[in-house]
Amino acid sequence: MEERLEEILDHAIENGRGMTALGKTATYIPELGHVNKEYLGVCVCTGDGTYYESGDSDIRFTIQSISKVISLAVALERCGFQKTFDRVGMEPSGDSFDSLVRLDLASDHPSNPMINSGAIAVASHLSCEISFERMLAFTRKLCMDDEIILDEKVYHSEMGHISRNKAIAYLLESKGILENGVEESLDLYVRMCSLCVTARSLAGFGLILASDGINPLTGERLLSSKVVQTVKSIMLTCGMYDGSGRFAVEVGVPSKSGVGGGILSVVDKRMGIGIFGPALDSKGNSIAGQYVLRELSDKMRLHMFADHVPEY
Amino acid sequence: MEERLEEILDHAIENGRGMTALGKTATYIPELGHVNKEYLGVCVCTGDGTYYESGDSDIRFTIQSISKVISLAVALERCGFQKTFDRVGMEPSGDSFDSLVRLDLASDHPSNPMINSGAIAVASHLSCEISFERMLAFTRKLCMDDEIILDEKVYHSEMGHISRNKAIAYLLESKGILENGVEESLDLYVRMCSLCVTARSLAGFGLILASDGINPLTGERLLSSKVVQTVKSIMLTCGMYDGSGRFAVEVGVPSKSGVGGGILSVVDKRMGIGIFGPALDSKGNSIAGQYVLRELSDKMRLHMFADHVPEY
Amino acid sequence: MEERLEEILDHAIENGRGMTALGKTATYIPELGHVNKEYLGVCVCTGDGTYYESGDSDIRFTIQSISKVISLAVALERCGFQKTFDRVGMEPSGDSFDSLVRLDLASDHPSNPMINSGAIAVASHLSCEISFERMLAFTRKLCMDDEIILDEKVYHSEMGHISRNKAIAYLLESKGILENGVEESLDLYVRMCSLCVTARSLAGFGLILASDGINPLTGERLLSSKVVQTVKSIMLTCGMYDGSGRFAVEVGVPSKSGVGGGILSVVDKRMGIGIFGPALDSKGNSIAGQYVLRELSDKMRLHMFADHVPEY
Amino acid sequence: MEERLEEILDHAIENGRGMTALGKTATYIPELGHVNKEYLGVCVCTGDGTYYESGDSDIRFTIQSISKVISLAVALERCGFQKTFDRVGMEPSGDSFDSLVRLDLASDHPSNPMINSGAIAVASHLSCEISFERMLAFTRKLCMDDEIILDEKVYHSEMGHISRNKAIAYLLESKGILENGVEESLDLYVRMCSLCVTARSLAGFGLILASDGINPLTGERLLSSKVVQTVKSIMLTCGMYDGSGRFAVEVGVPSKSGVGGGILSVVDKRMGIGIFGPALDSKGNSIAGQYVLRELSDKMRLHMFADHVPEY
Repeated sequence: MEERLEEILDHAIENGRGMTALGKTATYIPELGHVNKEYLGVCVCTGDGTYYESGDSDIRFTIQSISKVISLAVALERCGFQKTFDRVGMEPSGDSFDSLVRLDLASDHPSNPMINSGAIAVASHLSCEISFERMLAFTRKLCMDDEIILDEKVYHSEMGHISRNKAIAYLLESKGILENGVEESLDLYVRMCSLCVTARSLAGFGLILASDGINPLTGERLLSSKVVQTVKSIMLTCGMYDGSGRFAVEVGVPSKSGVGGGILSVVDKRMGIGIFGPALDSKGNSIAGQYVLRELSDKMRLHMFADHVPEY
Repeated sequence: MEERLEEILDHAIENGRGMTALGKTATYIPELGHVNKEYLGVCVCTGDGTYYESGDSDIRFTIQSISKVISLAVALERCGFQKTFDRVGMEPSGDSFDSLVRLDLASDHPSNPMINSGAIAVASHLSCEISFERMLAFTRKLCMDDEIILDEKVYHSEMGHISRNKAIAYLLESKGILENGVEESLDLYVRMCSLCVTARSLAGFGLILASDGINPLTGERLLSSKVVQTVKSIMLTCGMYDGSGRFAVEVGVPSKSGVGGGILSVVDKRMGIGIFGPALDSKGNSIAGQYVLRELSDKMRLHMFADHVPEY
Repeated sequence: MEERLEEILDHAIENGRGMTALGKTATYIPELGHVNKEYLGVCVCTGDGTYYESGDSDIRFTIQSISKVISLAVALERCGFQKTFDRVGMEPSGDSFDSLVRLDLASDHPSNPMINSGAIAVASHLSCEISFERMLAFTRKLCMDDEIILDEKVYHSEMGHISRNKAIAYLLESKGILENGVEESLDLYVRMCSLCVTARSLAGFGLILASDGINPLTGERLLSSKVVQTVKSIMLTCGMYDGSGRFAVEVGVPSKSGVGGGILSVVDKRMGIGIFGPALDSKGNSIAGQYVLRELSDKMRLHMFADHVPEY
Repeated sequence: MEERLEEILDHAIENGRGMTALGKTATYIPELGHVNKEYLGVCVCTGDGTYYESGDSDIRFTIQSISKVISLAVALERCGFQKTFDRVGMEPSGDSFDSLVRLDLASDHPSNPMINSGAIAVASHLSCEISFERMLAFTRKLCMDDEIILDEKVYHSEMGHISRNKAIAYLLESKGILENGVEESLDLYVRMCSLCVTARSLAGFGLILASDGINPLTGERLLSSKVVQTVKSIMLTCGMYDGSGRFAVEVGVPSKSGVGGGILSVVDKRMGIGIFGPALDSKGNSIAGQYVLRELSDKMRLHMFADHVPEY
């Protein structure tokens, strides 16, 4: 059985490698643009804590938007549902992740916490409640990976190319949505985006979300049931930017992508999956990573509405 | 146990009645505006085909947008995935159900088949392949309800107040998306919206979607697995108009609402639920119906990401 | 002096011919697409009724959107300012001429009568008050050209490719802005667009607008002062689609373009100018025609804010 | 004759006073909100340099957006047409003055220099070329008013409520449109907005624009012909925010308003007009000031397309 899962992973990576040529690495900062776009790795962490890996699953890369899941979860724990969702909605926006249009046009708050505007609002709130150091420590626990550190180069580079996010933050401030100053809000936001993870770290985090917020190895509860349920629901409708709808149809597992090339996927009650594939499609999602997830979903019947679910 | 389910339903209806005063019936045609907005009913159909009901579950009302689920399913069966999704996307739009903006601005096809523009594109395609009479016959089978008929009054009234949908249809035609003429496309679209169902019919339809497209009483397969999986995924991300995201968080079951006051909900592998509550919120969803579903989801742990699932 | 004006025209046409290669004829109906895009003609009609011409000034072409000026003027005369501007605004929209976005998003009426939505609203109103035959007769008087007729081929072709304008008309109907049915409104709108004029006809019309609505040869008043003043003001801010602002800076005379390649320009109290040049820029304005007008404006100091005005 | 002009002004102010109750002072900073909204004054400066005044024409108020005209004029003189219009367009936007939507959606530069985004782009460019002190000195010359100073209170208050303009500036920076840093750009922008003028100062500035950029008393040329022609054209199409089109129809003179309550109007070759009336309409234009200008335009036939022009 275990062997078979490893074969499935190897096969998916092998097939996926051909897709990397069709994507592009993120280029808004040089540090992301210089990454080898042929990297592709996957890691699965099953309910008993066993890791299955294939390809470049141990390469470190910046977590980028996947950190939005962590920040949302911590905000819900610390600040409560009411306060958090007073400042950010739960609706897919239909727009690209860094759009200002809907916020300016019609809305008194960002559409959801998985787009930049929503995540900056969450980070602002969070930055009043908790230090970055504690967020880092908690991220390590969630990912069961003590080697996660801040990538100083990426952090400084992002801070040096932050005009658009500053525009978003000041627009939020003008609407009275920020809890903290623009600088403090963006500093936490960018630090969280600049954490270095591997596909393996993401698989671990995915397993904890699949296990109702409990570390199945230690039995420690890291997040409450309601927070985990909420976070998975929002990942499902909003986690893959403006490609979330198609992804829900084709793969059907709550996921969150980042422009560093990572994807975090949660197969509820079964496993966590981490992907690294820095060649992105036009919406900012790992192009080969999505291919790998489609293949895994088909073969292992991971889709939330799969007709029957085999044992692994 | 069965008794307990009936108690849960009675309790939810009782609590929900207080919400009906906060909503409004649809008023774009007089036939909908005149409906008693205090109606509220629920029906659950469990895996063995047993129906549990409370409140106004036998009142007939027009299915309206819930027919979009049927049309999409039949289009996928008849015309195939490729042809169908060439004409309509799978992304939540973030806009209200009858918006023209995104279609005009940026897109070469409607965002998804659950908003008017997408459903008209689907109906256009479908109207080349199948007659309304056969669609009606199939709807009866899907709902396990032979008494479903066309409400002629509503049909004619809708046809007499169709300017906005005509605007949408001609915009689609100008973009080369319609397969059939505007009149033919809209005729099928409006006829499907004007079918008379009950909460009980919707519960039956829900059960068939929960049962992988198979009528669990007869064993007959009505829809293929892949179509059912696709339809449930799209209901989850797009089925409650621009309230779909919040509904996925709070209730967490694939659902589709109609401005007639109906909601179809699918608890995968467990049950179908039908709601009738014509008092609508500002997004066009039954206000008390949503309340009832939240209560049922909480009490019976129906959420797709509920931490554990009790037996019923 | 007269000689000098003719030289200026010849020179402008000569220079402008090089520009025709940079534009494209309108292609939404075959009849417009087949026109020779190298045509370029200009005609000036001065205050004493003398015509000066150069290039293809006697070729007939369809007036298209320039008819919006005639319809607006007649609507203001017949239906009054209040009624007309209840249904259509006076603001430049910033959008392309056939956009639905602003009308759907935010507005209860079209931005102005020079874009399709506004002109259809005006035509609807007008079609309740006056027959096309009388509109044609009046157009002949305004243009001092008895040979203006309906181009039947273009009329039928436009009616056969009218989806987008039907979308606009039905959206207007859904907002309660149309005075007459969609078919009747569009029929008058399209007939007016399909009238055949020459650069010479437009120069004549321009002179009448420059002369406060009076035919300077006969002394007959065709339009009231207030209507003429209003029409010229709206031509200035909205007449060249979403290129009106730049045109007001660079040429500085009230003008209206049509996708048939015509431009009507009014040099207040001095002359009318007609242009024919069917090669269009991306906004739908004659590309060489605009060049010719820039050159004439510079050389003859036609700009409304020119520092001093020479005699011709 | 002079007496008659004074009578016209007195009458217009008298009639206009009734309108002040219908408007509201700007409230985004307390300093503007506290101004007495019943103030109303007008000043006309005719070609021989004679001033005619009525009402509160000597009250100082902040020039606000009217400074956009000065900054544009200086930018055109200093940086040239090409460089300036590479960074900002000339088209009316149809949107409110502080909108981000069009800039984010579709455009690589702001629509025009009379809205905040365009003016910030111009200020950024200008701040590389000239000091605020020289801008102030030049403003005094243009307004023939040596007492113009910076209102320190308003300046500091604006700098303390600048989130929305910062959002605009950072969005511009993210698009590579700013020549200088956000702080430097906004500092010059806000300083220029915080200059204290009177209706009389604006009338003087208006006369210089009406006189082709020459101070008619001294004969000194302050701005070139081409700059003045351009600035007046842009004021006409864009100067009254999203009320510019109606204003061009009803008043018909190039004008620029500010949320401090000022309006600068230029009757080409005849006179400058300054208005002070801090009660604003919903678009941010002085409500009674517009009334006064309509009355003056009617009585003195100031409209650019008036049928005949009397002598004053």
